Amino acid sequence: MSAPKKVVLAYSGGLDTSIILKWLQTEYGCEVVTFTADLGQGEELEPAREKALMLGIKPENIYIEDLREEFVRDYVNPMFRANAQYEGLYLLGTSIARPLISKRLIEIAEATGADAVAHGATGKGNDQVRFELAAYALNPDIKVIAPWREWDLTSRTKLIDFAEKNQIPIAKDKRGEAPFSVDANLLHTSSEGKVLEDPAVDAPDYVYQRTVHPEDAPNEPEYIEIGFEKGDAVSINGQAVNAAEMLTQLNEYGRKHGIGRLDLVEGRFVGMKSRGIYETPGGTILLEAHRGIESITMDRGAMHLKDQLMPQYAELIYNGFWFSPERDMLQAAIDKSQEYVTGTVRLKLYKGLARTVGRWSDYSLYSEEHVTFEDDAGAYDQKDAAGFIKLNALRLRLLAMRDKRQR
Amino acid sequence: MSAPKKVVLAYSGGLDTSIILKWLQTEYGCEVVTFTADLGQGEELEPAREKALMLGIKPENIYIEDLREEFVRDYVNPMFRANAQYEGLYLLGTSIARPLISKRLIEIAEATGADAVAHGATGKGNDQVRFELAAYALNPDIKVIAPWREWDLTSRTKLIDFAEKNQIPIAKDKRGEAPFSVDANLLHTSSEGKVLEDPAVDAPDYVYQRTVHPEDAPNEPEYIEIGFEKGDAVSINGQAVNAAEMLTQLNEYGRKHGIGRLDLVEGRFVGMKSRGIYETPGGTILLEAHRGIESITMDRGAMHLKDQLMPQYAELIYNGFWFSPERDMLQAAIDKSQEYVTGTVRLKLYKGLARTVGRWSDYSLYSEEHVTFEDDAGAYDQKDAAGFIKLNALRLRLLAMRDKRQR
Amino acid sequence: MSAPKKVVLAYSGGLDTSIILKWLQTEYGCEVVTFTADLGQGEELEPAREKALMLGIKPENIYIEDLREEFVRDYVNPMFRANAQYEGLYLLGTSIARPLISKRLIEIAEATGADAVAHGATGKGNDQVRFELAAYALNPDIKVIAPWREWDLTSRTKLIDFAEKNQIPIAKDKRGEAPFSVDANLLHTSSEGKVLEDPAVDAPDYVYQRTVHPEDAPNEPEYIEIGFEKGDAVSINGQAVNAAEMLTQLNEYGRKHGIGRLDLVEGRFVGMKSRGIYETPGGTILLEAHRGIESITMDRGAMHLKDQLMPQYAELIYNGFWFSPERDMLQAAIDKSQEYVTGTVRLKLYKGLARTVGRWSDYSLYSEEHVTFEDDAGAYDQKDAAGFIKLNALRLRLLAMRDKRQR
Amino acid sequence: MSAPKKVVLAYSGGLDTSIILKWLQTEYGCEVVTFTADLGQGEELEPAREKALMLGIKPENIYIEDLREEFVRDYVNPMFRANAQYEGLYLLGTSIARPLISKRLIEIAEATGADAVAHGATGKGNDQVRFELAAYALNPDIKVIAPWREWDLTSRTKLIDFAEKNQIPIAKDKRGEAPFSVDANLLHTSSEGKVLEDPAVDAPDYVYQRTVHPEDAPNEPEYIEIGFEKGDAVSINGQAVNAAEMLTQLNEYGRKHGIGRLDLVEGRFVGMKSRGIYETPGGTILLEAHRGIESITMDRGAMHLKDQLMPQYAELIYNGFWFSPERDMLQAAIDKSQEYVTGTVRLKLYKGLARTVGRWSDYSLYSEEHVTFEDDAGAYDQKDAAGFIKLNALRLRLLAMRDKRQR
Repeated sequence: MSAPKKVVLAYSGGLDTSIILKWLQTEYGCEVVTFTADLGQGEELEPAREKALMLGIKPENIYIEDLREEFVRDYVNPMFRANAQYEGLYLLGTSIARPLISKRLIEIAEATGADAVAHGATGKGNDQVRFELAAYALNPDIKVIAPWREWDLTSRTKLIDFAEKNQIPIAKDKRGEAPFSVDANLLHTSSEGKVLEDPAVDAPDYVYQRTVHPEDAPNEPEYIEIGFEKGDAVSINGQAVNAAEMLTQLNEYGRKHGIGRLDLVEGRFVGMKSRGIYETPGGTILLEAHRGIESITMDRGAMHLKDQLMPQYAELIYNGFWFSPERDMLQAAIDKSQEYVTGTVRLKLYKGLARTVGRWSDYSLYSEEHVTFEDDAGAYDQKDAAGFIKLNALRLRLLAMRDKRQR
Repeated sequence: MSAPKKVVLAYSGGLDTSIILKWLQTEYGCEVVTFTADLGQGEELEPAREKALMLGIKPENIYIEDLREEFVRDYVNPMFRANAQYEGLYLLGTSIARPLISKRLIEIAEATGADAVAHGATGKGNDQVRFELAAYALNPDIKVIAPWREWDLTSRTKLIDFAEKNQIPIAKDKRGEAPFSVDANLLHTSSEGKVLEDPAVDAPDYVYQRTVHPEDAPNEPEYIEIGFEKGDAVSINGQAVNAAEMLTQLNEYGRKHGIGRLDLVEGRFVGMKSRGIYETPGGTILLEAHRGIESITMDRGAMHLKDQLMPQYAELIYNGFWFSPERDMLQAAIDKSQEYVTGTVRLKLYKGLARTVGRWSDYSLYSEEHVTFEDDAGAYDQKDAAGFIKLNALRLRLLAMRDKRQR
Repeated sequence: MSAPKKVVLAYSGGLDTSIILKWLQTEYGCEVVTFTADLGQGEELEPAREKALMLGIKPENIYIEDLREEFVRDYVNPMFRANAQYEGLYLLGTSIARPLISKRLIEIAEATGADAVAHGATGKGNDQVRFELAAYALNPDIKVIAPWREWDLTSRTKLIDFAEKNQIPIAKDKRGEAPFSVDANLLHTSSEGKVLEDPAVDAPDYVYQRTVHPEDAPNEPEYIEIGFEKGDAVSINGQAVNAAEMLTQLNEYGRKHGIGRLDLVEGRFVGMKSRGIYETPGGTILLEAHRGIESITMDRGAMHLKDQLMPQYAELIYNGFWFSPERDMLQAAIDKSQEYVTGTVRLKLYKGLARTVGRWSDYSLYSEEHVTFEDDAGAYDQKDAAGFIKLNALRLRLLAMRDKRQR
Repeated sequence: MSAPKKVVLAYSGGLDTSIILKWLQTEYGCEVVTFTADLGQGEELEPAREKALMLGIKPENIYIEDLREEFVRDYVNPMFRANAQYEGLYLLGTSIARPLISKRLIEIAEATGADAVAHGATGKGNDQVRFELAAYALNPDIKVIAPWREWDLTSRTKLIDFAEKNQIPIAKDKRGEAPFSVDANLLHTSSEGKVLEDPAVDAPDYVYQRTVHPEDAPNEPEYIEIGFEKGDAVSINGQAVNAAEMLTQLNEYGRKHGIGRLDLVEGRFVGMKSRGIYETPGGTILLEAHRGIESITMDRGAMHLKDQLMPQYAELIYNGFWFSPERDMLQAAIDKSQEYVTGTVRLKLYKGLARTVGRWSDYSLYSEEHVTFEDDAGAYDQKDAAGFIKLNALRLRLLAMRDKRQR
């Protein structure tokens, strides 16, 4: 790889990415463009601008954007149409944010004539893979710089030294090692590393930042109604809201009731297992509600096929293949299945649990006429079941006859 | 089908199966053998013997058996190795009991020289399919009698009339229609019909019989440790217990903490959707714990394959194909995956929720050495990630080059 | 089911469907509308009109249509995009024609105010299921009449008697039993029954009607080039042709070179196995060519996913679920994968075999630059492979470490 | 990686691996153990011994083994039970040989106290991945040396120079570049590179080495009968033979009749597409025969599940994951399905094509009694089909009712 001339850096404004910024300038002598996005991580973005200016970035090279609506509308919502859960449990909160960041990095690279992008993910995790696969999928000629895999700043001490030498301001609480590492966006907060590294040991209470402890949640349940259109949540208690606002409100409900905590050991794409604490308050409610509205509006054949495809779909997102032909194929199938997933779900929220307790829809496939224990006025002829069973059993009977013959 | 001469009836001792018993005698003039099983439904079995005697069954034709251990060991446990959930949520509590009942019906038919079996499932549900597919798979020549699909006792009034005419005792509370219908065994209690038929309306509190309301559960969480061997739960808080005892104890924990309630609309195999209230207290804890122990002992490749196979496996059980070559194939794959699923999981039980908070195993694949944020002493070379990503990206880059060429 | 008043019959003009026509008139006293379609079965349609008139059908109740283009464009081509083969081998020639016939039956029923449709498929086969599932999927209230399941004309003698009593003309060669039964359309000819019923015995030579014996095919190979656009064959040796014409020409190539014979035992949806002789001359060439063009234009990830979905897709079509939400989902995924399946394939045809020998495309993903044994000018860095392998191996090494620890 | 002390080299005796041998000695100064295996590639092994001795290898460090029986019995046969074809067509002839070679490399390393293994695969292909994944899966601490990824002998001239400088004898025809590269074993011969690099251009006739041209094959077809036991071929024309002999004989039949040629563009695991010419004479016959015996002995449900799993199974083998938990899981399922795949298949071999024309088995599930067009004496009640269809259609009708309601 020849040396980059101009690089777009995914820049949070924090100490680590500030060090990267400076390192890119000193190591490669290249012009740096910073990109700072609001994905709902709950941090002010303007300080990032000031810090970038202070580190010598030209004003026209500073990009700060609110991507919350795009994030939920074009990434989170399509993923929830699939009820995606990695390894049965993880709602992919970090995974789903990476492709959007990469997409903007590439677009800004094209707009500013940059030939490279850079990110602050380490060489042991999944995020490097997600950033880079997305980047290459969108621009096959882009250079990608992953300082954590390249530099020799391999200890906290060396990083702090570098920062000091380069006049990068260091917040007091950043001098030492953090007791664990955090990633957050509108969908979730994940925590991992250090105090969490022994999977036998309970996560300390202070790790949870996004939800109240279920023990501290209200003693009374709360009921909400979520309206769906074509598989996406569009209203809450009868109020239409946009995608980001929907997730924001659900997050607040989830936070308050202690919903969406997950303590998980998962298999990383790079090959080792890691332990994470995930808080996905709104997403956990959304998953339950989406399953609820599907249950009355979606055909059994379609649902079972979708359930069967889901693990591969979730794996693709986890592994960083959002921009891939096979994810596109699965998305086409999934979206097709959501055409009539429209209606309303009633949920009970209480002490860590969100549970569907009612659902209704103009597109319901539930037929009280057919299912009733009462007289169904001929809607269903019970005698049909005899033939249905007989022919479903035929191959099993032929197998049993063979067994008998062989005895 | 020629008339049956001797029929083995799945007999609960209740009003409905007593009517069936008498109907078989009068309609077909055939000898009846009764089979009453304890699957943990929580009812005394001896009254069934007395009632059968009273209805003219010969003592040697009355079979009463405790199948709880066999049920959990050979049916529930293999199924939980798969983390089976039908339509994403249902733990298959009714489905998994049917094949065992059919197996004993067929064995008793062979032992007593009966040429037919009979069951009390209706023509609208899944259970008739499950009973009959299992029966035919085990004996291709057996006759199956399903009175509900055949007779003209199509209303409560006609049933009561028939009972009265035939001196079948009728408990007071059985004269009218039950407000909903119940099925129970050691794994779960399901309720459906009547007051539950409108899926938009919350299930009344009195429907729940197996678990306390989460609101009434203890205000303090409780922690338990479940030990696993090759995928099956074998000890609780350090005490080894057999399969049935394990589930019994987990049920008690679940009951107390209000765990395992599910309000579901599901797609029946016979084609319509139905709404059920399921309570699976111990099973819900078991699923969470099993996922927990798998998370550190099971390889990623194996787990993802198993997750992908699960929906079909669950569908097979739901649809009644327990005794089928394809379920055997999936079971062989699943069992293979469980060879090292051995270790211990720590769970927190609180107000309706069971959550893994720790797990450890001699067979753990979790390597703190590899995953650590600290210096890993060379266990993992971060530079390897660059090549890993580059080659995973190659096909995506070739796609992007094509797109570029076509623009 | 109440008696039908007006019924649309899938009418071939042959003896069997003429008997059905008359039986519908006499048994139900209902008005009959006949529908005769040209799907490329190679028979004149006008005699069917005359025969229908002779049997008392009103001229306005006689529908005769050439559906060949629609058949190939909307049914055969979408199916070939999937490379669909049932049980690994069968190209679904009969299965794919049924939904189109049902669709027109239902449309004609709606146009003529008929409340029922009727078909001539027997109660043992798959076709009854395909006709009826499609009919019900398109009109939930339609009545379906399947005379072969209802009437008592259960022997050849009774049928001939009925025909004679009702003045239905009987061709000489139809008096006795045919030595086997045939179904044909533009995609294939299938033969089954009677002389073919012992699967151990070779099919007699005279069964094959659509292709020359490979031994009698030309001694010189012939080469053809097939052009594709978005997964569909659109030109042959440089000449653009429409869908039906394409298959017609490929059939002629296949016939001449003895291509597309298949002697198969297959599992029917109704539960038993049957043996069929299939001749699919053009389709066999088309499958090979489609695989060929996909091989250079389709991404590996997309192709592997499609291959994995194919068996279920083929099963859906075989079982009669063309008009189902899950087939729609799979089709959406498959069609998505075909966007760039555009280019040309060169095939060698010789003595029963069609084999791809060359392929090229503007959308090719094959990169000589990357794959070359020669110097690749840096397109691919062989050192990347080391990291790629190392990280793919990591989980396997962790497994091996566990094994070692346990020894 | 610290320097290796003793390395086991997969050694063919040819020029390239002789250069590697010498390079290992000079580059690493390490002791070399050679391993030369007969996998049916059709070359004498003793010359490899002499050459190794000549290059200074101690006699006790030279391992020469005939692995043909183990290769077919433990690798080829299990794979054929799955009907494995990569990307729909490739019979995995190279892929399946690699894990066995690696297994022996690792075993010899353990026996000789070697700390490393080495192979002669390049950095662009799949074989490096297969060798190394298998090695790491069997010994997590082994060092793997892949000289082609490391050295600077990047052109034919440099290689020849190195050979000359090191007194490695060079056969005359090895001085120049070969027009294509070949790999062979008992299952297949593959050819790729150079004259084959343009996938639009037909492979020259001289590339095919393992089969006669179909045009030159006998003008008369030949019939053979292959006997199977539990999914493996065990006899030919009534003669029992061992696994290697079976494949050897089938190869001779295939060679003679020009069977098993494949011209393929495939997606490599390392990310690019490559074009190969494969000749798999015996394997092509075996696949057809295995499908044939399965067709009458295997249940539909089992077969469809197996077909659905096959693409992933084939991909695992292609990608080098033979020794992985997920391959073990799939193998367990596949082997389970083969318990009754026992019987005989009759095939017609003619001019490039092997076609099943008859099959029989004591374990046949084909029931002439059920399928017959003649009177079946009540084995099958055609009226059952009505109920079967009605209930299969119910969900489709409920969908259609919804559509109607919405219009």
